[in-house]
Amino acid sequence: MIGLNRDVVVLRIGHRPQRDQRVTTHVGLTARALGANGMFLAANDAGIVTGIGDVSTRFGGSFFVQDGVSWRTCIRKWKESGGTVVHLTMFGLNLPDVEEQLQKIERLMVVVGAEKVPGEVYELADYNVAITSQPHSEIASLAIFLDHIIGPDALTKEFSNASIRVIPTARGKCTKGP
Amino acid sequence: MIGLNRDVVVLRIGHRPQRDQRVTTHVGLTARALGANGMFLAANDAGIVTGIGDVSTRFGGSFFVQDGVSWRTCIRKWKESGGTVVHLTMFGLNLPDVEEQLQKIERLMVVVGAEKVPGEVYELADYNVAITSQPHSEIASLAIFLDHIIGPDALTKEFSNASIRVIPTARGKCTKGP
Repeated sequence: MIGLNRDVVVLRIGHRPQRDQRVTTHVGLTARALGANGMFLAANDAGIVTGIGDVSTRFGGSFFVQDGVSWRTCIRKWKESGGTVVHLTMFGLNLPDVEEQLQKIERLMVVVGAEKVPGEVYELADYNVAITSQPHSEIASLAIFLDHIIGPDALTKEFSNASIRVIPTARGKCTKGP
Repeated sequence: MIGLNRDVVVLRIGHRPQRDQRVTTHVGLTARALGANGMFLAANDAGIVTGIGDVSTRFGGSFFVQDGVSWRTCIRKWKESGGTVVHLTMFGLNLPDVEEQLQKIERLMVVVGAEKVPGEVYELADYNVAITSQPHSEIASLAIFLDHIIGPDALTKEFSNASIRVIPTARGKCTKGP
């Protein structure tokens, strides 16, 4: 298992500023909650950066969001620095068939597309991985991928510097903080 | 593990027809891909029913979507018929602490809310379950929940009567069908 002390980043591509704001926010918040270090966004969208930043301010941790990156440069630099790139796509190899290999990788970039992904991404990625070969959701795919690859720690991560904490409870809502 | 031969349905509440169309579609498609039987939608939205129905027609299976249900009636009937209701919420008990119990349940309704969920839902549910105590995404939560509760079968389910099938491949796209 990679565990929470390794480098896992998400690269979100194909984001259209108006239409994809909610879905991309879900992608970023999912990455944060499950222990990724941060998200690169291959589009300019300050609203996403601010929105996820607000959650981090309240709920803690050091998740970064950087918008306006070029996906090609971002992938190239990651690979040049020794990192591995996994592209999530329903056309890839199914997760159960490759997860053992992927769990051993120390620096992982997970590429998450929207509806149309350029063919070049399939070539640049070290692995194209499917979370089932069915059409569903990039948010669901990222969630299951991180849970499987980061391991059991992903669901129990503690966030430092949180000003608000949720106390798990059987009924209702219980929080600690302002 | 519940496995794919048991009853798992999703109840989507708090859906606002315009604003939530994409997120609710992702919820439904995720439920379908991971082996749930169908989704009840506590709102009228024929577009969701048609959209997910189109995917089922092409990719197979017998996933149902029923819109226009009353969530209160739907939960009550499920419980009256001996089913168990799990509400996914960041305020609930963390999944790793309850999943062993939940895996033994034969008939499971998973309630997935949007931003605001009536307090009554927390009371009506047999279990309130968190997928981490962090704010992220109901799509991500549902995905991880079904993967953990339905078990390894969730990622390898085959769909009958598919007119199109994706053949997992390391690079590019490979499909079988028209």
